[in-house]
Amino acid sequence: MSEYLSDHVHLSDDGTAVVILDQTQLPNRTQYLTLRTAREMYDAIQSLQVRGAPCIGICAAYDLYVLAQQADAALSAADFLSKLREQAKYLASSRPTAVNLRWALDRMLHTAEHCADRADRLSVLRDECLAIHKEDIAMCRSIAEYGLSLVKDGDGILTHCNAGPLATSRYGTALGPLFLGKERGYKFHVFSDETRPLLQGARLTSYELSRGGIDVTLICDNMASLVMKNGWVQACFVGCDRVAANGDAANKIGTSGVAILAKHYGIPFYVLGPTSTIDLNCATGEDIPIEQRDPEEIKEKFYAEPMALPEVKCYNPAFDVTDHTLISGIVTEYGICRPPYTESLRAVFDKKHAGIPFGAPEEEHA
Amino acid sequence: MSEYLSDHVHLSDDGTAVVILDQTQLPNRTQYLTLRTAREMYDAIQSLQVRGAPCIGICAAYDLYVLAQQADAALSAADFLSKLREQAKYLASSRPTAVNLRWALDRMLHTAEHCADRADRLSVLRDECLAIHKEDIAMCRSIAEYGLSLVKDGDGILTHCNAGPLATSRYGTALGPLFLGKERGYKFHVFSDETRPLLQGARLTSYELSRGGIDVTLICDNMASLVMKNGWVQACFVGCDRVAANGDAANKIGTSGVAILAKHYGIPFYVLGPTSTIDLNCATGEDIPIEQRDPEEIKEKFYAEPMALPEVKCYNPAFDVTDHTLISGIVTEYGICRPPYTESLRAVFDKKHAGIPFGAPEEEHA
Repeated sequence: MSEYLSDHVHLSDDGTAVVILDQTQLPNRTQYLTLRTAREMYDAIQSLQVRGAPCIGICAAYDLYVLAQQADAALSAADFLSKLREQAKYLASSRPTAVNLRWALDRMLHTAEHCADRADRLSVLRDECLAIHKEDIAMCRSIAEYGLSLVKDGDGILTHCNAGPLATSRYGTALGPLFLGKERGYKFHVFSDETRPLLQGARLTSYELSRGGIDVTLICDNMASLVMKNGWVQACFVGCDRVAANGDAANKIGTSGVAILAKHYGIPFYVLGPTSTIDLNCATGEDIPIEQRDPEEIKEKFYAEPMALPEVKCYNPAFDVTDHTLISGIVTEYGICRPPYTESLRAVFDKKHAGIPFGAPEEEHA
Repeated sequence: MSEYLSDHVHLSDDGTAVVILDQTQLPNRTQYLTLRTAREMYDAIQSLQVRGAPCIGICAAYDLYVLAQQADAALSAADFLSKLREQAKYLASSRPTAVNLRWALDRMLHTAEHCADRADRLSVLRDECLAIHKEDIAMCRSIAEYGLSLVKDGDGILTHCNAGPLATSRYGTALGPLFLGKERGYKFHVFSDETRPLLQGARLTSYELSRGGIDVTLICDNMASLVMKNGWVQACFVGCDRVAANGDAANKIGTSGVAILAKHYGIPFYVLGPTSTIDLNCATGEDIPIEQRDPEEIKEKFYAEPMALPEVKCYNPAFDVTDHTLISGIVTEYGICRPPYTESLRAVFDKKHAGIPFGAPEEEHA
């Protein structure tokens, strides 16, 4: 895996800006952006220049640290916090579905609130955003390890959208087991749904896997049924943007369709994500807001000319919710949750809140 | 419905060429092509400038008549037939899945074979291709009438690919009930899958319906699951390229996925097509050849720049087969076939072979 794929969101050398790889330019251009203002940060998330639920969280934490530096040093703790909360609220509004965004911002705010010493507040926030990034790498590694235990060498894996290194920090969530397996000599055959309308599967997933030396075949979303029928898929691995307490999982539009096909063909369907993606405050998927995006993404974006008449209406939801009954397992850094999810997800949080360290034991290999 | 939509394949005024609307240029340009050579005719079908199983059949019949005129008038009946068979074989090889292509060519050959009078052979072939076209219009009208009996005013209908007037001659198959319903004041809400990779749903279906004054919402293929979950779909109507004796139906890639989703959500799924699309020589879908097309269609076609790395592999099947167990009914010009299809499809052919005229009685409307 090329090094820059695990370093696509970071602080600038002097720490006063956030540097991101512009994911909207892939696979044709490797172009970095330097974000300094709240508006630039909002736009980068909203326009998907940075995307992937865990990655948005990391980016937003860096964003808030950079914005905190711009606050008047003379501000009282209360005024500083008030300013920071306002900026966090603004950033959080850039995308409504991913819970990691709000989670990372809340964690940064919480840190700021508990920083007694005014002189220290910037260095404490800096430590916190770097910790969030570092923890994400460790969580992805652990998810990858657990995920790898679900498949075997030579398996065909179907994935939707992008939940690889570009969507996180390193390894990725859904693609983590594939990259980790590759390190250990596994030969997987991956089918990557292109994932309309924004083609993250084509532009990002097939790019990451191909560059990582993993066998990947790109398909249109509507080919997944035939690929499964052909017997080429032994498991589906997808990421998630928010998981409700009952296991209902919001992820990129089309994920629920993949899950229904997988059930029809008797193929296990796994959702992989860090516990920061699980929102126990959402009882079910009904409580997860679904972002609606511009019809232009369906009719015009990427094309040399429009593909439908201007007067044709579009429905363009960015996400859908996969019913928990369709999910074979939810893979977190603390282990694999199985139905009933209301209990297994709660158990993971009990461990987390008790401060028990996560991490899968490395597999033994003959 | 604009008149040209029902006149997009026809003979030139002097009858020495076939004129087609180039469907690859829609919706941005209305451009007609004049076909005179077998190579031009082959390429027009292969490149989808003319497409839709019934429409390909009509076009191929005109093609063969035009080519027959080019044969040396001095040829013996045997040599003329031999030449015609060779040209029919070449045209038939342009697309392997649609059975109407072969059906129309066989019918023209059969007519030529039974034309005793050498002087008459061209006028007999001319009458035959015009009859095939005229019959298609009547069949579509009858299919539309039967299809309309399956839905009610205000229903939401999901369709995949294009099986409208552009895919046939007039009314269309899957879209026939919608156009006929519109004439009678029904207000349907149609969801059109864009249908990757060639976007016939965006470029043709949403175009035809919108121009026809029918409420249509364009969605990406992977949004069908959410649209169904939202309760917006009361029936799915799709066309077909070949139906096997047991009811397994080959249609545009992705159709089988729509059928699986429909079953999951408890929505009836109907396949609409003329009996010329039913191939009793195919016992099951296993016997239907599936055309594989160029990866370029997935990675590059229509785009301003490529959407995946050059080294990324693609799987690009043009069709899939929907299992008969997923199909609620197959709507032909002779009526609606219900499971078990082995019996109901056979019964339709018994009627057809007995010379019983097809045609649904027009519905009574209050």
